[in-house]
Amino acid sequence: MSLNEIELGYLGVHPRGHLATVSPNGTPQVKPVGFEYNAEFGTIDIAGYEMAASAKYRNIAEHPSVAFMVEDAIGVGAQGMRFLEIRGLAEPAVTEAADAHLSPHIIRIRPQRIVGWNVDPQRPGTYRRTL
Amino acid sequence: MSLNEIELGYLGVHPRGHLATVSPNGTPQVKPVGFEYNAEFGTIDIAGYEMAASAKYRNIAEHPSVAFMVEDAIGVGAQGMRFLEIRGLAEPAVTEAADAHLSPHIIRIRPQRIVGWNVDPQRPGTYRRTL
Repeated sequence: MSLNEIELGYLGVHPRGHLATVSPNGTPQVKPVGFEYNAEFGTIDIAGYEMAASAKYRNIAEHPSVAFMVEDAIGVGAQGMRFLEIRGLAEPAVTEAADAHLSPHIIRIRPQRIVGWNVDPQRPGTYRRTL
Repeated sequence: MSLNEIELGYLGVHPRGHLATVSPNGTPQVKPVGFEYNAEFGTIDIAGYEMAASAKYRNIAEHPSVAFMVEDAIGVGAQGMRFLEIRGLAEPAVTEAADAHLSPHIIRIRPQRIVGWNVDPQRPGTYRRTL
């Protein structure tokens, strides 16, 4: 298993996140994306509309390092925020599309480093872990 | 003026966005951030809690190219999404902090390239512009 119960619990109640990739010339881009945790491989699998034609899909071929962010607010200001950032190496993969609007091509992220804020009710504040 | 009325209108009703930066070793990171459009300079100004000690603030010293994303959903699937991504060059700046919880150090983004989706009611779909 790659992600632990606290991380999976937080991801599980959020349908969408943000994926940051780096283009061949070094410029980052960030897009909202849907995702699923793939329990078989311990990966974050990101599907999308016309994925194989997207800039993020091309970007990971040259720069596999990516960052994926899920976040919400349960209160006011920084103290009321929660987030989980998963940094890792992305690779292209092919799956059966979950529905006809999604491409079978996906981006699969193998987590390497986790940075969180207020995601563990037992440990409020910063949360960091290397896998 | 750097951003146009459509872009400013879309940004104006959203209190938060996501900022992607690139670390010295080339790994991207992405974080939720508050922001304001600075009409005097035509910039996106990003303030935060302990900004000067943050990784994103250090990252822009070495890699000034950043991407800033604001997005929402007004319907189902890709057709129901809207987003505005602003890519540009970031620099550190100092302002009077808006409140005591925010650092006077900010990240100031000079927009160079805009990629949007469904942000202009007159032009649904993709929206791209170089400044």
